Amino acid sequence: MSLREEALAFHEAVRGKIAVHSKVPCATSRDLSLAYTPGVAAPCREIERNPDDVYRYTAKGNLVAVVTDGTAVLGLGDIGALASIPVMEGKAILFKNFAGIDAFPIAVASKDPEDIVRTVAMIEPVFGGINLEDISAPRCFEVEERLKKALKIPVFHDDQHGTAVVALAALINALRLVGKDFRDLKVAVSGAGAAGVAVTKFLLSFGAKDVILCDSRGVIHKSRPDLNPSKQKIAALTNPRNVTGTLADAIRGADVFLGLSVAGIVTPDMVSSMAGDAVVFAMANPEPEIMPELALEAGAVVVATGRSDYPNQVNNVLGFPGIFRGALDVRASDINEHMKMAASRAIASLVENVTRECIIPSPLDRRVVPAVAEAVARAAIESGVARVPVDPVQVGRRAEEMVRTLEKDVC
Amino acid sequence: MSLREEALAFHEAVRGKIAVHSKVPCATSRDLSLAYTPGVAAPCREIERNPDDVYRYTAKGNLVAVVTDGTAVLGLGDIGALASIPVMEGKAILFKNFAGIDAFPIAVASKDPEDIVRTVAMIEPVFGGINLEDISAPRCFEVEERLKKALKIPVFHDDQHGTAVVALAALINALRLVGKDFRDLKVAVSGAGAAGVAVTKFLLSFGAKDVILCDSRGVIHKSRPDLNPSKQKIAALTNPRNVTGTLADAIRGADVFLGLSVAGIVTPDMVSSMAGDAVVFAMANPEPEIMPELALEAGAVVVATGRSDYPNQVNNVLGFPGIFRGALDVRASDINEHMKMAASRAIASLVENVTRECIIPSPLDRRVVPAVAEAVARAAIESGVARVPVDPVQVGRRAEEMVRTLEKDVC
Repeated sequence: MSLREEALAFHEAVRGKIAVHSKVPCATSRDLSLAYTPGVAAPCREIERNPDDVYRYTAKGNLVAVVTDGTAVLGLGDIGALASIPVMEGKAILFKNFAGIDAFPIAVASKDPEDIVRTVAMIEPVFGGINLEDISAPRCFEVEERLKKALKIPVFHDDQHGTAVVALAALINALRLVGKDFRDLKVAVSGAGAAGVAVTKFLLSFGAKDVILCDSRGVIHKSRPDLNPSKQKIAALTNPRNVTGTLADAIRGADVFLGLSVAGIVTPDMVSSMAGDAVVFAMANPEPEIMPELALEAGAVVVATGRSDYPNQVNNVLGFPGIFRGALDVRASDINEHMKMAASRAIASLVENVTRECIIPSPLDRRVVPAVAEAVARAAIESGVARVPVDPVQVGRRAEEMVRTLEKDVC
Repeated sequence: MSLREEALAFHEAVRGKIAVHSKVPCATSRDLSLAYTPGVAAPCREIERNPDDVYRYTAKGNLVAVVTDGTAVLGLGDIGALASIPVMEGKAILFKNFAGIDAFPIAVASKDPEDIVRTVAMIEPVFGGINLEDISAPRCFEVEERLKKALKIPVFHDDQHGTAVVALAALINALRLVGKDFRDLKVAVSGAGAAGVAVTKFLLSFGAKDVILCDSRGVIHKSRPDLNPSKQKIAALTNPRNVTGTLADAIRGADVFLGLSVAGIVTPDMVSSMAGDAVVFAMANPEPEIMPELALEAGAVVVATGRSDYPNQVNNVLGFPGIFRGALDVRASDINEHMKMAASRAIASLVENVTRECIIPSPLDRRVVPAVAEAVARAAIESGVARVPVDPVQVGRRAEEMVRTLEKDVC
């Protein structure tokens, strides 16, 4: 049986990878009078008086909406809200199985950013956080920016920031191997979608000065007449040497190539044209920009991909579960740059013995979520967005305990 | 400890009565490749090609949104979306524990019917049904009507139709006891909110000809200048004798009184003024329109309330779990009059030995959901709204099996 057939049979057998579970019984009149009427009136009145009590008496504090419009689903593109649901359910169970977070799929039946923003704002009350997923660029930037302003709970577009956090974690260790510093790097980024733009901005947060972003038409520079507003913004922040031309021109002499674009667009010659000790992250899914064996032959010293069948898999599951765990546990109002950078550093620090074939932990490494949660919680407190005083060490310990419990549950 | 204190401690201990559960493991790379990428692409593609396959590969077919704006929550009134969440979670666990339905609370942060309709339409893709809850009249009528037209999945406002179905089930048996027929009845209904209006319309579906509805200002009749559009509509359908005046005028000579209004507004004298073998359902919560002992003393032959501490409790939990179970199992596009009437008859038929103190099953009677689900499924097929051919007997049997499994789970 092919993977396709097996996946179809698997999905048909479970009919939904998520279920809504009742944590309390309803078997007796007493049960009903506590969980429903008349007892339920008591927490309602408390919340009416003090809205923050919603975190005390309801599921809100551990509940994340996985929101999509189905426009940029995996490598499948704009398949629509309905067809995106298996992926959103998949994301929800990753939240649950990796970090004990209750996540619920919301597939919005419109591609209009106005509708998406309005819908999410309307359903905010029950949720403690919003994970935007598989919304195509540049609409995703507007949606995220507007929601971050409008909502009191953290909003995080995983395709942007989750990817950036995990890619940068891997890059921290790769640079350690080759003995280079962010400030001195020349970086070429391929792909100006959600992930490419976010990775580029995040590189700048980490101190990189010379980053060139390429879209399908080539290098993004200030003189290009065909840039949309989000690319104009990025043009102003990047490419200080005003390079023009194609991806090959951007890569020539670069220390680092980061691919978040499409299969096969990087040739061995392009890799050979890079600076010494070249770092190549070819993260297009499922087929990378260049196959690892070719990149290595062409002179790359460290290679990473998005694939599980090669070393150094850059997988978002290393990021979002721990990031949300930490943000929810200190009731952060935002997931900001400081928290994301802390997450990258925490992920990188878990690799004790960095080698060319091991710059990032395995996606199944159960130390990741507690370490990321603790670091993110600490960064939230330090950056002033935490709304409850919790010791970050406790956040990490609780996450460890949760991971152990979850392992028992699912295995 | 008072019930209030106990309910607060209970809610604080669980922090959310619902959780999102993962039905599949994510412990190995193999698990991930089936439930998430790359395997998940297969069901996505199938659904893109054939939208109905969403029922085959996702949780949609068993997933109900419990939607409120928090404007008419229990007896608490307009407490807002946030404060309504404990009730919506409570409703969700009733769906789960009684009928195995995955239900998720959606508390909408707006009281504008336009916003509520738009939000629910936007989040339709993941859900198999919509249960509207605790939305105040007359807004609830507009919201329900518009959503029924706009959505492909069934929409059901439980405060209206759930209450009507269960009250009418009790009335069927009460009329059997006193030997009267719907067509010959004089009925007085008190309360022109969601429940009162729905019960009135449903009485007409059952063949009643002489129904008088009263709001807080007295009898609703065609000449009253102060009626909103929904009350004007009901005025045109009811009160054929053109009675005017107060609730007392409506009750005088009536065979049946149905109270869905406020505590204590019916006096013993009013009950004494009714026709012989008077039936009194005083269903205001938590305090009825008249206490049962007073109604009985004043000559009522059968008395029902919403309370668990008196005989004949009219409790919505006898209705909505089985109604949705049946509707979901045949993938009904609507929950129509035919299905609701079938539900009432199924509930009534479960009381084998009808007495004055037993006209309706206990809310904890586990035979109810299978019987209602089967009857509703059959009525959906007969009325042409079922979209998959399933034998109603099978629907009932599966529900019986589910109830048995759930009992094991929660006890």
